[in-house]
Amino acid sequence: MLLRGAPLIGVAAAFAFALAMKEKEIKNIRELSQYAETVKKALTSTRPTAKNLFWAVDRVYGFIEKMIREGKNVTQISAEVEKLAKSIYDEDIKVNLKISENGKGLFKRNSTIMTHCNAGALATAGYGTALGVIRAAYKDGRVKKVYVNETRPYLQGARLTMLELMYEKIPCELITDNMAGYVMKNGKVDAVIVGADRIARNGDVANKIGTYQLAILADYHKIPFYVAAPTSTIDRSVATGKNIPIEHRNEDEVKKIFGKYITLKNAKALHPAFDVTPAELVSAIITEEKVFKYPYNF
Amino acid sequence: MLLRGAPLIGVAAAFAFALAMKEKEIKNIRELSQYAETVKKALTSTRPTAKNLFWAVDRVYGFIEKMIREGKNVTQISAEVEKLAKSIYDEDIKVNLKISENGKGLFKRNSTIMTHCNAGALATAGYGTALGVIRAAYKDGRVKKVYVNETRPYLQGARLTMLELMYEKIPCELITDNMAGYVMKNGKVDAVIVGADRIARNGDVANKIGTYQLAILADYHKIPFYVAAPTSTIDRSVATGKNIPIEHRNEDEVKKIFGKYITLKNAKALHPAFDVTPAELVSAIITEEKVFKYPYNF
Repeated sequence: MLLRGAPLIGVAAAFAFALAMKEKEIKNIRELSQYAETVKKALTSTRPTAKNLFWAVDRVYGFIEKMIREGKNVTQISAEVEKLAKSIYDEDIKVNLKISENGKGLFKRNSTIMTHCNAGALATAGYGTALGVIRAAYKDGRVKKVYVNETRPYLQGARLTMLELMYEKIPCELITDNMAGYVMKNGKVDAVIVGADRIARNGDVANKIGTYQLAILADYHKIPFYVAAPTSTIDRSVATGKNIPIEHRNEDEVKKIFGKYITLKNAKALHPAFDVTPAELVSAIITEEKVFKYPYNF
Repeated sequence: MLLRGAPLIGVAAAFAFALAMKEKEIKNIRELSQYAETVKKALTSTRPTAKNLFWAVDRVYGFIEKMIREGKNVTQISAEVEKLAKSIYDEDIKVNLKISENGKGLFKRNSTIMTHCNAGALATAGYGTALGVIRAAYKDGRVKKVYVNETRPYLQGARLTMLELMYEKIPCELITDNMAGYVMKNGKVDAVIVGADRIARNGDVANKIGTYQLAILADYHKIPFYVAAPTSTIDRSVATGKNIPIEHRNEDEVKKIFGKYITLKNAKALHPAFDVTPAELVSAIITEEKVFKYPYNF
């Protein structure tokens, strides 16, 4: 959890792959091939939900395989992998900027926006997906204010999104996750926008826990609910959200805040880190290619 | 916030009134009458939302006025007020037991229940309203498990409800407030039950922040949503929830946990302590008199 956010996890995995190749003394191509497989397995076993992790690792691994077939030597391959990681990093920023440009038009002038968790510069190589759209829309005079859900248990909204918005002087207000319905009813929220960790072929969206109920609340209050994500988050190999693996994390992450128990030590707690929002609750999915509207068929 | 929970606030206010009468040296009936008015004002200015506060204070104050009319002396009145406070306390426990008996039949055998905040023994003179119903239903074999929303920002669910349930060995699991939708979708929740701070004539329910969105989520998942409260929580003087005053508390209660900031020091935060759930989202209101079903007309 030192790094989080699907796009950032992808970029970091590419660099981790490059670093692993660089630091290991590899004698020959056969050893390199075996080692690449080990690294691939190690990296993909870290987080199960974020598609971008698998996308980035597969991309680097496929690239290594291709170079082996082309007869490149160990030194050449290692150098090329580092270049690839750097280009994945650069690409991610460009992709975010495109997502932001594609998405900002969805917000009308002086909109009040609500967001959950952090899908900003701190969740990507830079600029952000959902927060990138908010940034670009703000520059256009389309954002009056942003309500930020604190996003328990990790408080990414309180800790990261508030920081990014305040740094940019975008008017923002922190709420606890259970105030979202109240604010939608009383605070005239014009749109909700979030990032994504994995999107199924039918448009079901896995994202930070709490996203699902936020989409239900938006639907109840007739507020559009947008998802912003690079196409690398789309997983065409899974038909629906039912097939997206949801990471369950340690219950102590719910039971403790700042290392102190908020409940009885021996209490049971549940900690699904993500949930799945059905496609029919998602008004549009904003990617670097285009804005997809419901129904989706990736 | 050393005391919370609408029924407990009512009982505590009655005792506070008795204590004020006892500790002050009152020379004559005229002074007593003036002093009673001062105490009434002081007590009713503490918390704006909980109806039980006004109900208890008005009851004690009316009783004092009656005794003055009847020609009782200062010593007699002070002693009678103390007796009244004790009987309000005893009554509250009896009322809770009746609520619990009236409500438990709403749960089928082996139900999984979800609750928000704390409407238990720690929110009343004893036994509890919503948690009282859960207690009684559990003894009847009607409760398999209880999901407890932690209830930010004060964490009454994590701190109080988990304690009460674990003390009684009722199986329970803590969740963050943003997991409620996920659990309803995946955890087979059979019913949601909460307490109330004030109920309008039409059945709109003011209760702990987060209750409103929980009712929307229950509705979306076709799960019955019950409110348990004494009739002293019903405010026939307000037609709908729009007229119930909502207490807004200090934003630092949202921004800090265990005295430490979870966001930037100069961040803005919102802190409505309660919200209003429209009557149409409330399947039944369980009181000591009977179980009222929608539509309500108190």
